[in-house]
Amino acid sequence: MYKCIYERQVEKWGIFEVSVPGKTEGNPFTDYDIIAIFSGTNETKKVNGFYDGNGEYVVRFMPDFEGDYTFNISGSFSKQSYQGEFKSIKPTTDNHGYVQVSDTYHFRYADGAPYYSVGTTCYAWVHQSEERQEQTLKTLADHAFNKIRFCIFPKHYDYNYADPITFPYEGTPCDNAGLNRNTMNAYMEDKSSNHWDFTKLNPEHFHRFDTRIRQLMEMGIEADIILFHPYDRWGFDGMGAENDDRYVKYMVARYSAYRNVWWSLANEYDYVKTKTIEDWERIAAVICENDSYARLRSIHNGPHYYDFSKTWVTHCSCQGTDRYKAVEYTDELMLKYQKPVVWDEILYEGNLNLGWGNISGEELTRRFWEASMRGGYAGHGETLLQSVDDTVDQAILWWSHGGTLQGDSPERIAFLHKILSEIPGGYGLKVIPSYWDAVTATIDREEDKDKQVKDYYLFYFTFLRPLYRDLYFDDDTKFKVDLIDTWNMTIVPQGMYQGHFRIITGGNSYMAIRVQKV
Amino acid sequence: MYKCIYERQVEKWGIFEVSVPGKTEGNPFTDYDIIAIFSGTNETKKVNGFYDGNGEYVVRFMPDFEGDYTFNISGSFSKQSYQGEFKSIKPTTDNHGYVQVSDTYHFRYADGAPYYSVGTTCYAWVHQSEERQEQTLKTLADHAFNKIRFCIFPKHYDYNYADPITFPYEGTPCDNAGLNRNTMNAYMEDKSSNHWDFTKLNPEHFHRFDTRIRQLMEMGIEADIILFHPYDRWGFDGMGAENDDRYVKYMVARYSAYRNVWWSLANEYDYVKTKTIEDWERIAAVICENDSYARLRSIHNGPHYYDFSKTWVTHCSCQGTDRYKAVEYTDELMLKYQKPVVWDEILYEGNLNLGWGNISGEELTRRFWEASMRGGYAGHGETLLQSVDDTVDQAILWWSHGGTLQGDSPERIAFLHKILSEIPGGYGLKVIPSYWDAVTATIDREEDKDKQVKDYYLFYFTFLRPLYRDLYFDDDTKFKVDLIDTWNMTIVPQGMYQGHFRIITGGNSYMAIRVQKV
Repeated sequence: MYKCIYERQVEKWGIFEVSVPGKTEGNPFTDYDIIAIFSGTNETKKVNGFYDGNGEYVVRFMPDFEGDYTFNISGSFSKQSYQGEFKSIKPTTDNHGYVQVSDTYHFRYADGAPYYSVGTTCYAWVHQSEERQEQTLKTLADHAFNKIRFCIFPKHYDYNYADPITFPYEGTPCDNAGLNRNTMNAYMEDKSSNHWDFTKLNPEHFHRFDTRIRQLMEMGIEADIILFHPYDRWGFDGMGAENDDRYVKYMVARYSAYRNVWWSLANEYDYVKTKTIEDWERIAAVICENDSYARLRSIHNGPHYYDFSKTWVTHCSCQGTDRYKAVEYTDELMLKYQKPVVWDEILYEGNLNLGWGNISGEELTRRFWEASMRGGYAGHGETLLQSVDDTVDQAILWWSHGGTLQGDSPERIAFLHKILSEIPGGYGLKVIPSYWDAVTATIDREEDKDKQVKDYYLFYFTFLRPLYRDLYFDDDTKFKVDLIDTWNMTIVPQGMYQGHFRIITGGNSYMAIRVQKV
Repeated sequence: MYKCIYERQVEKWGIFEVSVPGKTEGNPFTDYDIIAIFSGTNETKKVNGFYDGNGEYVVRFMPDFEGDYTFNISGSFSKQSYQGEFKSIKPTTDNHGYVQVSDTYHFRYADGAPYYSVGTTCYAWVHQSEERQEQTLKTLADHAFNKIRFCIFPKHYDYNYADPITFPYEGTPCDNAGLNRNTMNAYMEDKSSNHWDFTKLNPEHFHRFDTRIRQLMEMGIEADIILFHPYDRWGFDGMGAENDDRYVKYMVARYSAYRNVWWSLANEYDYVKTKTIEDWERIAAVICENDSYARLRSIHNGPHYYDFSKTWVTHCSCQGTDRYKAVEYTDELMLKYQKPVVWDEILYEGNLNLGWGNISGEELTRRFWEASMRGGYAGHGETLLQSVDDTVDQAILWWSHGGTLQGDSPERIAFLHKILSEIPGGYGLKVIPSYWDAVTATIDREEDKDKQVKDYYLFYFTFLRPLYRDLYFDDDTKFKVDLIDTWNMTIVPQGMYQGHFRIITGGNSYMAIRVQKV
């Protein structure tokens, strides 16, 4: 018989986990409930536990305060209830808590530290070999990305024909021996040779996600979990409402305690032909009802933005809908939805035979800057074939598999993140009218709104390339000016200026000027 | 006393000119009329003559047919009427006649030869020194541009502070001794220190335009004459309806016989604050009423397109209204207006401290390709400072002054023109749906409309950069394929293909594939 197992101490915003024994008769995934009440001086929270296989039930909890907590676990999973107590202690330096919306359009960690989102995408990285997963984590450790989008369900698409190393449900997948680019769509249309029991989740599949999400958390990387997606040959995109809701509830019970979790209801929801808007709304309601932490929630589009004005949507998770102009709409979207705008897909740095994956590092970096300057946040992806012999069967591409990065944009994105991290007060940026060839940002801070002359200006010239820029703010204010080369990643101090002055920008693309009140 | 002076022979689409003496009492520009009737076997045309100073009246005429013509000149300009006859002979090889709209969206010369417009802009080139004008013509001779936009009235703007070498009216201009960037706007607001007699045109000013327009004609370059524009310190933008109409009528009498003339009512009409839409419509009516040749007519916009659906508008003369996306709307505009779309301003290759003049040669070339692929036509301009010491007082920039070209785009535009000139049958291009990262064009020819497999495809990958492209049209048709590098200006034959095939595009931006039925 199992005992109630847990640590007696956890840091604030860490994960407190209790494992208790329970019933195994029938189907523990559907037949029983397990509910825990956590009580500390400043909060009382009810959370669901989940069945983790082998007669073991687990409850996870994130304390939002320091101090003593007690818990009580009960439910039909066991005749017995379980009680205990633990201490929530001061968080370690790198633990800033969860990310939340701040100042309408931006984000901050729970401790007030700024969070400037620079994301990346590795849809199926947790479905790859353990060795590649480790390699992915190592790559992430060497870069600045602080959010990663990935799927719980495996991916079926060009470059993604292999089965995942585990499946989320008990059963057997279709035989993929005859699968190739020409038969790919047929596999998506006829899924009848898959045999799954959607009432029985596969704990092994989720154990690995537990580890990976925790590792990301420890690395300071937000886990933007994609619950559903359209690229499927197994039927996980069309399990029906009851199975969908059970899965979502299970995901919330299992992962909502991780402070780095964001819920992405779908990748390209509008390509998921088996679900309607009503389905997405119902799924959102299941999350809202069960997630005691109210983690960030959104839903990512294909050709058409979701209605981000829905109250459950915490931020806009956008894919550009035009290959020429996308992130340039950031400020329009912000105004329209009064929420942060996160561009999770703006074409990937790559060279694929597919239009969403063949822009240059220059262009992806430019898109990151454009989005950031306008007060939004962007996401990276890499789809770089090493040679024309890299086939759709075997090529390893960061965008889906993880692994290593070869592109030019990641270090430039890190450089952008550094520039953002230097914004005074940790505020976000806000675009303001200015020279029409310079996207111009200042600090998005209420108190600055009516200031004629701001404390901080960032001018970004995008692909345009003036040889110099004449600037004037007023006669008296003294400014410190830096010339920023966003491509060559240099910041060259230009000295102090007042009144009318000229900054030699040099006539290359991708330059910026930072002007700060002394 | 003058005689009636004229050549006895002129080539078809050439200019027949008669000079006759007439009254000098009063004001010959306002007090008299001079009308000529030309009659040949196939046409009879009535045209206005014009006063050219020194008691000389001139009539110009372009025969649209070969054969014998007679003329009769009469009017209040003289008690005498003048008659004569001449022969219109076979045109020389380079004389293809005037350009007219063909197949709704495109252009052809009168003799049926295709005209693929690749324009450039030198607003004030005829206001510069004779030496610079000669240099401009020499530069044009070395390049592929086959249309040039320029103003009759002088230009007042940064880099255009000097007075023109002649003025269009009798009188004296304001003193420009105190003119600089800071006082520039004041000069535009208060024009009271100019003293002009708007009833008295200055023939000297127009003699030079006569020469230049004729030279352009002989070089095969269309003269896109800008009648009005907003960048004025002299008051030519606000002469009032009566003076405007007299000026326009004079321009039509003087220049409509030149086969290479296009009428551009304005550069950036919506910045001309002294005129309303009603004024532009009235001016258009004056042109239509007096121009016996119905030369191409349009009006160029600043922030807002003119209503190109007006019947007098023969083609859309557009300036992009968004720095990120402009020529990409070509096919939408074509469908909307059912007229050719000519992008006369899409930002210039340059490095100015002004947002309309600092894109790269790459970007301008890309815009030319995008416009052309979608069935439109683009215009070039160059605003390249040689150094930061080139001031707004003295720098010489092609865009306004002419002179020489330094940029990267002109030879690429010539290369594009060569590709266009190789379209079978001299037809234009038409964009068709295809891979979403390739702008795909085929021949815009009625008989091809319902063909499943076309005779000709041009795929342009713009800034996107696939490593290869898999193509398939049908199983049987044999195609000849060329790989085109639009930046490095190479055309590499790839051989013959049938069924499914792969073209290695190499993973660089600005590549194109041309596929032609064998």
